[in-house]
Amino acid sequence: MSGEQRELNSWVFMVTARAPTNIAVIKYWGKRDEKLILPINDSISVTLDPDHLSATTTVAVSPSFSSDRMWLNGKEVSLGGERYQNCLREIRSRGRDVVDEKSGTLIKKEDWQTLHLHIASHNNFPTAAGLASSAAGFACLVYALAKLMDIEERYAGELSAIARQGSGSACRSLYGGFVKWDMGKERDGSDSIAVQLATEEHWEELVILVAVVSSRQKETSSTTGMRESVETSELLHHRAQEVVPKRIVQMQEAIANHDFASFARITCVDSNQFHAVCLDASPPIFYMNDTSHRIINCIEKWNRFEGTPQVSYTFDAGPNAVICAPSRKVAGLLLQRLLYYFPPDSSKELSSYVIGDTSILGEIGLKSMKDVESLIAPPEFRSQNSSSIHPGEVDYFICTRPGKGPIILRNEDQAFFNNKTGFPFRISET
Amino acid sequence: MSGEQRELNSWVFMVTARAPTNIAVIKYWGKRDEKLILPINDSISVTLDPDHLSATTTVAVSPSFSSDRMWLNGKEVSLGGERYQNCLREIRSRGRDVVDEKSGTLIKKEDWQTLHLHIASHNNFPTAAGLASSAAGFACLVYALAKLMDIEERYAGELSAIARQGSGSACRSLYGGFVKWDMGKERDGSDSIAVQLATEEHWEELVILVAVVSSRQKETSSTTGMRESVETSELLHHRAQEVVPKRIVQMQEAIANHDFASFARITCVDSNQFHAVCLDASPPIFYMNDTSHRIINCIEKWNRFEGTPQVSYTFDAGPNAVICAPSRKVAGLLLQRLLYYFPPDSSKELSSYVIGDTSILGEIGLKSMKDVESLIAPPEFRSQNSSSIHPGEVDYFICTRPGKGPIILRNEDQAFFNNKTGFPFRISET
Repeated sequence: MSGEQRELNSWVFMVTARAPTNIAVIKYWGKRDEKLILPINDSISVTLDPDHLSATTTVAVSPSFSSDRMWLNGKEVSLGGERYQNCLREIRSRGRDVVDEKSGTLIKKEDWQTLHLHIASHNNFPTAAGLASSAAGFACLVYALAKLMDIEERYAGELSAIARQGSGSACRSLYGGFVKWDMGKERDGSDSIAVQLATEEHWEELVILVAVVSSRQKETSSTTGMRESVETSELLHHRAQEVVPKRIVQMQEAIANHDFASFARITCVDSNQFHAVCLDASPPIFYMNDTSHRIINCIEKWNRFEGTPQVSYTFDAGPNAVICAPSRKVAGLLLQRLLYYFPPDSSKELSSYVIGDTSILGEIGLKSMKDVESLIAPPEFRSQNSSSIHPGEVDYFICTRPGKGPIILRNEDQAFFNNKTGFPFRISET
Repeated sequence: MSGEQRELNSWVFMVTARAPTNIAVIKYWGKRDEKLILPINDSISVTLDPDHLSATTTVAVSPSFSSDRMWLNGKEVSLGGERYQNCLREIRSRGRDVVDEKSGTLIKKEDWQTLHLHIASHNNFPTAAGLASSAAGFACLVYALAKLMDIEERYAGELSAIARQGSGSACRSLYGGFVKWDMGKERDGSDSIAVQLATEEHWEELVILVAVVSSRQKETSSTTGMRESVETSELLHHRAQEVVPKRIVQMQEAIANHDFASFARITCVDSNQFHAVCLDASPPIFYMNDTSHRIINCIEKWNRFEGTPQVSYTFDAGPNAVICAPSRKVAGLLLQRLLYYFPPDSSKELSSYVIGDTSILGEIGLKSMKDVESLIAPPEFRSQNSSSIHPGEVDYFICTRPGKGPIILRNEDQAFFNNKTGFPFRISET
């Protein structure tokens, strides 16, 4: 450790938090203010179980730090971007006097403006999977810093309004269960906040399956895609103004009433409409690929065969499907179908092909790849030929469920920094 | 030949016609009347050169025929469908007295109601290619029957209104060059007719390249897709009412002024918006596949690199691209790019991979597959790696141009029926 990194008799305060990712069921697509990240419509999301999809972040403060620094998945990254700067500025301005009871050390609220911060964040899922990690990341950063600086919300949702300025959808990751992001009306964005509609226990039977789809195509970032859609799509504004407000009301009712058929119907049409407005942008944006289309066709076919929605699907700015089933039983039927249509490449083990809460596999009698290979065509599929089986098109599946909001991890073992130095235990070479 | 097929001293009158196919640059998508095939918006198309993409149809009448019969590409097909019946009824009701000068045979106008017809139609392009053949087919049928029955239009576009009842876009195939289909206002559809905006000579520099894309997926028929879009898409009506009327005006101006940049811009955004509303339908409809997306990305990248549209693209209800270039020179640059990105499978000859008017190949120095293999990456593409080359994804290319409307083929050799019997020379076993 170099001398510049640590002064003698210095102190380090740390907080470690974990925050979930979330999946929108009514999509956020389009900003009315690029800088404050204010959306053109309300959105609704389901928070995903942090055991399977979350960010864990340690934030540290010390007079020995010479600058704000951040490590993401072990690699130092720049904090110079406007979005990080906006979050850090907003959160620092709300810092309060903090006293360490053990040492008696006092940080005065004005000290937050000059003390430097160290931030280390890790995702518990592969970043290459194209699963929105920025939502969990910014929610976790804001939540951890608020604890570190002993910030209390002056109004409900204040922290979500700060996380929103890091990544729009991050505001929804500050709550568990079912969350609405109110677009708000104020020009300063103070009312563009997340509100919890229901906790994860409210509808705990739901099972969520993420299909991580193989993709070699470089995708348009969601920031760029969103801006280009707002600027060029003639359909986007009609969606935001005329279509979404009705769907928000219907979705809130569906969630309140555990009305899975309505929940599924609205989730699917809203995902498709989001991708439709992307296609209506100029140049057009394609986030779904042929595999995504095949997953949709498989689900639509099943849903029509049964006469009522069995499961819902939704796709964010990428080819991965997030599929929701109303119960473990239906999730088992879903998994059988998906593994039948989309078996892994021959080299893969079942244990690396289906991850997360894999207890459903046991319930449907799938213990190894041999069992997967013995799966028979589902009834809605029997009239078709086998050319509709697509090995290797899905990288892997994650079984999860609605989950809780951010939490503080009190066990110091879970921190990413040495509590004496405030530096990562091992700094990766970049 | 069996006795029932021919009476002694009987006569056969025949007419053979050829009609072009057309590609919409402002799309027709959605009917306000399913039976009369009345659209919810105007559309504009370019007629394609019948030398490369057309239907040829022989119609025959004889007192020896015992029923209306039709052979499509050599195979007998049913005429029982409502669309055929509507066309036949409408055209028969307009038949006039016809005298054969040679034999003195008279067909009185009321005889058309009872005399039976034989129809044989062939396309000069593979039907498996998924290129709209119904437009050329119904235009050709109506045109040939009108000649046979000596029908004169009581108002301009009357025949197009009949062809429209066979297949909506068929009305546009009754004219060459650039054609507008006025949606009309009348409930009986009498003013829902095609109007020629300009002849093919008006903008004869245009070159059109069709990329026939390999596809194993079964597609939603356009009739079904259109109905489901009207019933379920919340964006379609906004498109038809608010977006298309402006584009129609802009496109007419672009064509009148040979303004290729505007022509290309509107063509591309309108194709994408049509596919966007299909995606907004429930269940969603996907006509484009990953190859279609890659063709779009390739063209969009080139157009942006040059700062102004070099070529336009448009896709109908399938994955095939129809690409338009403003000159032979630009068409050559386009073909170099497409053959670089989408080379054929190794087994294919250049002469079967690029068909139609292949003279451009010579102008750009491509004489064999060896020359194709030596193509270098275009400048807008040099920063990328070679994984963006996709052999075998395109089945073949057709080089064509804007073309003329239907014509009568006076040479009896071109008829598909024996002029004594009115039956096909060879009847395929079905």
